[in-house]
Amino acid sequence: MMVEGELLIGGRAMRGNNGTVHATDAASGERMAPAFGGAGMQELDEACRLAWGAFDAYRETAPEQRAAFLERIAENILALGDALIERCMRESGLPRARLEGERGRTVGQLRLFSSVVRAGDFLDVRIDPAQPDRKPLPRSDLRLRQVALGPVAVFGASNFPLAFSVAGGDTAAALAAGCPVVVKAHSAHPGTSEMVGRAVQRAVRECGMPEGTFSLLFDAGREIGQALVADPRIKAVGFTGSRAGGTALMRIAAARPEPIPVYAEMSSINPVVLFPHALAARGVQIAQGFVSSLVLGAGQFCTNPGLVLAVDGQDLDRFIAAASEALAQAPAATMLTPGIRDAYQAGVAALGSHDTVKLEARGKDGGATQARAALFSTDAASFRRERGLREEVFGAASLVVRCANLADMQDLLESMEGQLTAAIHIDDADHADARRMLPTLERRAGRILVNGFGTGVEVSHAMVHGGPYPATSDGRSTSVGSMAIQRFLRPVCYQDLPAALLPPALQPDNPMQVTRLVDGVVVPA
Amino acid sequence: MMVEGELLIGGRAMRGNNGTVHATDAASGERMAPAFGGAGMQELDEACRLAWGAFDAYRETAPEQRAAFLERIAENILALGDALIERCMRESGLPRARLEGERGRTVGQLRLFSSVVRAGDFLDVRIDPAQPDRKPLPRSDLRLRQVALGPVAVFGASNFPLAFSVAGGDTAAALAAGCPVVVKAHSAHPGTSEMVGRAVQRAVRECGMPEGTFSLLFDAGREIGQALVADPRIKAVGFTGSRAGGTALMRIAAARPEPIPVYAEMSSINPVVLFPHALAARGVQIAQGFVSSLVLGAGQFCTNPGLVLAVDGQDLDRFIAAASEALAQAPAATMLTPGIRDAYQAGVAALGSHDTVKLEARGKDGGATQARAALFSTDAASFRRERGLREEVFGAASLVVRCANLADMQDLLESMEGQLTAAIHIDDADHADARRMLPTLERRAGRILVNGFGTGVEVSHAMVHGGPYPATSDGRSTSVGSMAIQRFLRPVCYQDLPAALLPPALQPDNPMQVTRLVDGVVVPA
Repeated sequence: MMVEGELLIGGRAMRGNNGTVHATDAASGERMAPAFGGAGMQELDEACRLAWGAFDAYRETAPEQRAAFLERIAENILALGDALIERCMRESGLPRARLEGERGRTVGQLRLFSSVVRAGDFLDVRIDPAQPDRKPLPRSDLRLRQVALGPVAVFGASNFPLAFSVAGGDTAAALAAGCPVVVKAHSAHPGTSEMVGRAVQRAVRECGMPEGTFSLLFDAGREIGQALVADPRIKAVGFTGSRAGGTALMRIAAARPEPIPVYAEMSSINPVVLFPHALAARGVQIAQGFVSSLVLGAGQFCTNPGLVLAVDGQDLDRFIAAASEALAQAPAATMLTPGIRDAYQAGVAALGSHDTVKLEARGKDGGATQARAALFSTDAASFRRERGLREEVFGAASLVVRCANLADMQDLLESMEGQLTAAIHIDDADHADARRMLPTLERRAGRILVNGFGTGVEVSHAMVHGGPYPATSDGRSTSVGSMAIQRFLRPVCYQDLPAALLPPALQPDNPMQVTRLVDGVVVPA
Repeated sequence: MMVEGELLIGGRAMRGNNGTVHATDAASGERMAPAFGGAGMQELDEACRLAWGAFDAYRETAPEQRAAFLERIAENILALGDALIERCMRESGLPRARLEGERGRTVGQLRLFSSVVRAGDFLDVRIDPAQPDRKPLPRSDLRLRQVALGPVAVFGASNFPLAFSVAGGDTAAALAAGCPVVVKAHSAHPGTSEMVGRAVQRAVRECGMPEGTFSLLFDAGREIGQALVADPRIKAVGFTGSRAGGTALMRIAAARPEPIPVYAEMSSINPVVLFPHALAARGVQIAQGFVSSLVLGAGQFCTNPGLVLAVDGQDLDRFIAAASEALAQAPAATMLTPGIRDAYQAGVAALGSHDTVKLEARGKDGGATQARAALFSTDAASFRRERGLREEVFGAASLVVRCANLADMQDLLESMEGQLTAAIHIDDADHADARRMLPTLERRAGRILVNGFGTGVEVSHAMVHGGPYPATSDGRSTSVGSMAIQRFLRPVCYQDLPAALLPPALQPDNPMQVTRLVDGVVVPA
């Protein structure tokens, strides 16, 4: 039996006594076995104590050791086989193909960070050699590297039960950076969480990592998650979820005697901007791509296209007609949890209740337990006036805004909050107009796409899955891609240390073979 | 007349009507002419409006243009000649040689950032080329660069009227990153601020930069500085000053509808750790170096050695005796302002009032308007118990703590708050002990020095002038050195942009000749 309902505290598994968490079969709404015992303050304290105790040793593990550990986690997840997929399907309502893909992404993410650890460039080594004869004052020998921040609290996301949960992006980045991780499992998929948690726990043991490198907590309420963020041994937080949840954690972190960074990925409506020539030439085709992106995974992506801006006219009418036609064929879908479905339906009802908002289409009806896609339209003046139209409706709902002209579109974009993505659809003849809009998009979004949609986030070196507040709590960072390792690091300068005391990355003969900035010049390994 | 008491709002100079600020002759305490009119909300609004208006154009200036602009600021500061030094001497009480050195550092800092802008590595360009044939899904073309955060509010520091004030480190880093700057001048040196501000304003005009690239405000109270941090067009804050001041700005920034990063450099007592062999072999010599560092600039450095830890015994007695002898010869000194002097004297009195603290030595007496250096000692148990002994006394005061053994020293360090620097004094025979202490030092400080003192902060690539809270508000950053440019940047990813729309740094033929990470591999320019 792989799912016991137990907390994983360092090397041990134990039953929590602070309330219970139950998984719900997303499709049927039925409660699933087993019950998961919620962690109490004692288990939280123990997880943090172990993480703190592991920190100094774990952060100085050799790159090869740490890389092998990340790979072992990936292998152990794969070794869970179909049992993981089946548990996850029931808990999340997501289909097999999606979850198999997501497992691939999770494993790929761990392997990417493994390669990043091996390459060592994340250490950002800088060396300014001593200049003993410099006048009027000699220069000391100065060497800089990045070190791990400390134990990290990771909050699993509901919508990526594998790729952004127990061994997901934040965990992989934190472990790669040298930070022990304490995960607060998302209560929507506790069984998936425990299975993956055991895979990580096993990897810790198999690779000889310090025991406290990883712990997994269930929380029957909110108190343990909040206490985790407040714990003095936790030095950073990774979170993916709602704006209310993210800002609550930000407040706790800011109020600590020692404030810590919170990387919360919270909400985004991901504007899609249709430029006139592209709309005229390819409106129907764009509409089909748009609806495919909108309904993918029941719309449960942070990068779901929740807003379309275009100049009013016949071309836009044709786009809306084609999108409506495609949307009407979209099957009803099970959402991740009954709560998410209810929130989606309430959001759709709220959108539809505006006098100035027109319902253009609904997806197929699947009964009360299933969510139907929805497409609305409004005009720019109404969108400008009614702030409620800008709120994310998490799920397959989108709003088309009929704008007067390009300047009106740009003005609306200027008035919007920070976004994860902004997509523009352009033909060559739109380039000049698009160029004028780019500065606005750069200030408003973390990723700008041309002739595509934000869903499908590549896990690579140049990816940014981030963006200005409130898309995230900290627009200087990304949660996806290899650059995410930077969020869990800080620089330390070593002045005049004898070679014998220098960390390997900074030693004169470069034993780690890392790229270095020497007197301001990049010297590859 | 170069000092008119005027605000500099973009290209204009104007008199503020919201109260007045007067400079005080630091040595005599006399009020100096002219009166500086404080900015009101209208001038603040105008400065922010101009900065926001300048932002898109300024951040996309070509590297050569921006580099030349930074160099021109340096030239214009030098062109102020001796008038600047003389005004600054009177306002700050700092001696000519120090201020000439600081001017050199200020100019050098601007030139360093000029070279950083030209090199372009700060853009952190990453390219993951498209893989149209990849299975199961093709990969898009992904390109990442860093872009400027937005207009930055800079609060000048009292203790570096040139190098960390109007055209100091934060301003140079922000301008290099592509951020317009609105400076709130420190009221301790308004004339110096205006002179340097006019040099920057002139450079903006001479180099054809957008008008709003720079503004300078005086604030007769605190309201304008606070409103500046709250202004929605300001996207980051640089501050050097007190913990009370820094945390106040942090609270304002966190409470905004859109929270923004605050880089506040606040307080540090910079522990100096004397290891047994070094203390036995070189105690007298270390004591002399220690006192030189302690009394430098009347102790008014963030990196001033305010705490010494060593194992109790005859070697430490000899160290204290030698330090006391040297300190007794230290001349009394004018401090930056009467307020700073009063706070110093109150801090010294508070230290001396502890039953468990022994006054070891005072510097020479210079009368009521001058500050005298002070050296105290205590034991580890008292230091552990009385938290007041850990508070920074800004000025030439330090406390020696007699520890039981090395483990006691390390335990004390573990219990301390974040620090800018930590210095260890070691001989070869101390290496093994020092190695055990390094992990603690890495977690507690931004810079670790061997056989030196933290005063004298090199402006270079490998410098970290930062550290865990409360040394700074954000230990992930440095305020000195070329890495400081990163604090004013955020990443943006461009997906499938046609070459014609890509910013130059990301174009296929690399016209800016910058180092790039291509598919995870460093490719130098």
